[in-house]
Amino acid sequence: MVRWEPDARGRLERAALELYVERGFEQTTVAEIAKRAGLTERTFFRHFADKREVLFGGSAALQERLVTAVLDAPAGASPIEAVTAALVDAATLLQARRAAVRRRHGVITATAELQERELIKLAALTGSMAGALRRRGVADPTASLSAEAGMAVFKVAFERWVTGSAPKGSDLPGLIRDVLADLRTVAAG
Amino acid sequence: MVRWEPDARGRLERAALELYVERGFEQTTVAEIAKRAGLTERTFFRHFADKREVLFGGSAALQERLVTAVLDAPAGASPIEAVTAALVDAATLLQARRAAVRRRHGVITATAELQERELIKLAALTGSMAGALRRRGVADPTASLSAEAGMAVFKVAFERWVTGSAPKGSDLPGLIRDVLADLRTVAAG
Repeated sequence: MVRWEPDARGRLERAALELYVERGFEQTTVAEIAKRAGLTERTFFRHFADKREVLFGGSAALQERLVTAVLDAPAGASPIEAVTAALVDAATLLQARRAAVRRRHGVITATAELQERELIKLAALTGSMAGALRRRGVADPTASLSAEAGMAVFKVAFERWVTGSAPKGSDLPGLIRDVLADLRTVAAG
Repeated sequence: MVRWEPDARGRLERAALELYVERGFEQTTVAEIAKRAGLTERTFFRHFADKREVLFGGSAALQERLVTAVLDAPAGASPIEAVTAALVDAATLLQARRAAVRRRHGVITATAELQERELIKLAALTGSMAGALRRRGVADPTASLSAEAGMAVFKVAFERWVTGSAPKGSDLPGLIRDVLADLRTVAAG
């Protein structure tokens, strides 16, 4: 009998993150995650392919959201504005889950295999945004360059936000806009 | 008895690249590389830890060269100029070895594991250039952002150069300067 477990996915995610922080990613087993969440391993595998998937399960949805936001940017938006608008939109989600995002970042930073996976994810998101710009009629190399430059802005803003090195009270969407302004200065330099 | 093999490293590199292109990276063995180069496996392992190392063995020297070039940029150079000067300097090396670099790129693009490794390498190079800027007295986030933006420029220029989508006769150092000019336009956009 398959029981309906309310918010099973969310419970598994929270349990996994707690354990990854407490014991390290490599030392944590799926059995332990399921136990901590009060669920079975079988339920875990209905939601995630493996324990790495808990950290990257949202990638496809994020990619779709970014692409949609690039496509939906106002007709008059420049390529970098369209990309930044998409990243700011995604950033509002991260901002709302700040504690979990910071915990996830700590786990990823501590594990080489996860860092590689994160870099692949960011490269794929950059490629998708460049593709969305092309669908808006932006030619290359402007499309690729705008997506890469937008991702550069995001990375710097995210790093400041997630490590707490930005001024206290800074929110991620605001930091992205600040770093975009910095990029203008840097590029003109 | 250890025999001196003239240009053993270069012969192994050329043999490995040929085989990776002909048979695929995963299907090639160290024994085959050594045989093609007319050398022993033992000689291979004196030069490389494994067959992946043949493709990434130059990373440390490249990193050192980039850092030195950032540090040696004229005192009046802006951060993005210092980073771009370093990348242009590295690009002259790639330009001189164009056929081998294109072959290497084809092998890396065909293999997910190698793509991950390449992304890690580029991220490490970006981090090193940001570190060199800090040693020049550039504060963050400008240091990180200039390194990330410079790497964005490099990636776009390299992709155009290596895939042959740039106008015929374009050289990589020139493309980097062109894409830097594009970045100014894109960022201002």
